[in-house]
Amino acid sequence: MWWVFIIIKPKPENSHLVKEISALDQDGKRISTYSIIEKPLSIYLNDSHIVTAMTVGDYPKYLAVGYLINQSIIKELDKIEDIEVVKEINTVVVRTKEKSLYEINKKNQIKTSGCANGTIFNNVIEEIQKITLNSSITISAAQIYSLYKVISLTPSLYLKSGAIHGCVLCYEDKTLAYFEDVGRHNAIDKLAGYMFLNKIKPEDKFLYTTGRLTSEMVIKTVMMKIPILASRSGYTAWGVELAKTSNLTMLGRLRGRKFTLLSGYERLSLSD
Amino acid sequence: MWWVFIIIKPKPENSHLVKEISALDQDGKRISTYSIIEKPLSIYLNDSHIVTAMTVGDYPKYLAVGYLINQSIIKELDKIEDIEVVKEINTVVVRTKEKSLYEINKKNQIKTSGCANGTIFNNVIEEIQKITLNSSITISAAQIYSLYKVISLTPSLYLKSGAIHGCVLCYEDKTLAYFEDVGRHNAIDKLAGYMFLNKIKPEDKFLYTTGRLTSEMVIKTVMMKIPILASRSGYTAWGVELAKTSNLTMLGRLRGRKFTLLSGYERLSLSD
Repeated sequence: MWWVFIIIKPKPENSHLVKEISALDQDGKRISTYSIIEKPLSIYLNDSHIVTAMTVGDYPKYLAVGYLINQSIIKELDKIEDIEVVKEINTVVVRTKEKSLYEINKKNQIKTSGCANGTIFNNVIEEIQKITLNSSITISAAQIYSLYKVISLTPSLYLKSGAIHGCVLCYEDKTLAYFEDVGRHNAIDKLAGYMFLNKIKPEDKFLYTTGRLTSEMVIKTVMMKIPILASRSGYTAWGVELAKTSNLTMLGRLRGRKFTLLSGYERLSLSD
Repeated sequence: MWWVFIIIKPKPENSHLVKEISALDQDGKRISTYSIIEKPLSIYLNDSHIVTAMTVGDYPKYLAVGYLINQSIIKELDKIEDIEVVKEINTVVVRTKEKSLYEINKKNQIKTSGCANGTIFNNVIEEIQKITLNSSITISAAQIYSLYKVISLTPSLYLKSGAIHGCVLCYEDKTLAYFEDVGRHNAIDKLAGYMFLNKIKPEDKFLYTTGRLTSEMVIKTVMMKIPILASRSGYTAWGVELAKTSNLTMLGRLRGRKFTLLSGYERLSLSD
């Protein structure tokens, strides 16, 4: 392997991400509990406001770049001139050498609301329909169970405070990068930015998410060209359909030693 | 009680909401599984496109009206002239007698991304800071456990397919309306539309949600003037802060006979 992995782990001890609060339990006893911090982060591309995301606030550069590449607004690393985080106003500005097509033509934008979808653009849906993932890597059920166990036992914001989603990039039996955020789409966007800026190739990777496998999560995974996606949660009909169209191997309801294989069956060696 | 409740229940048997799909289990055995259907719904106010939500698609009128009132774009029932669902193009058009402030001044809009937040507007944040919930109703832990049990056992899309959130409006020991959607904010918006169009008063009600208690869920509950909100999930720091500011009674991590009481302690009689 010619590149060095930057291992990213959750940071449950970071007081900028979790806040201790006072509450009562069901018997009226005063207790101390942890709550996750959410705050707005505005993402600008040059002088255009692209989106304001509610995020825990770590890795703002990865989040901004990942969002822009997953929306297909930025496509090449060398087009990025500078990424500036202006902490005081919760803003990231990504500057490029030339204007993107997005800035030139804002007409193809659709706003979507919320949990099932953040914001997607018509052009992304068109684009992923042209993508067929053709990586021939395989993974065994035993490897998946082992990764699931490692991920579940890793100290995380989830284990400390709950109310947060995680996305973990894996290679063979190793977890390479574990991002968390209040929105599952933010966690995956941070991972996309991390992979893009560190030139990590996707074809031989496995992606685990705690979030549901909605159309949005599938679209992002396909945009990132990762061939295998697994979640401990459920799936939507459109998510499954898009996974099939793009030949993404997708597993839902992964818990312990059980899962449901929804698409891309050939990358799973079930005999192990 | 002078008004008649329209009891709304989940519809797990509705084939427009869930789709049966073929998959493999962890041993490679072919199985049949259910996936929730998500599709875009565009909400228009007169000739302005307000938002495109990803939704299961039931109760489009309630969703559209609930979204508009929770964003404080529409405030009075008699201002609504007509609500038209145009199924062929997944669109709802809400028509009003006169233009809203939103249409006159679009400048105060911020777009937010995703799971933690759908789309909120600056004016809503300003507005809820002026609201103090002063209902003096109380609820006992025993009542909460009993409602939780009833809700958990009600046949639902959640029990059938997973990957969906629920919002349940309760009065004393009764569940009055149970809405489900892929986004928790859609489920609560449908409830808001239902209450608004049926003139159901909020001051003596209890709201249960399966979703996390983020700032967005608290903002909507306060906008709807429901004094007690409970969730089986966790909470964010900003969600708790907003609940305290508005004197909303809020409970998180409700499971079985356990919960964490986060704010508005006086509405809970813990001695029962």
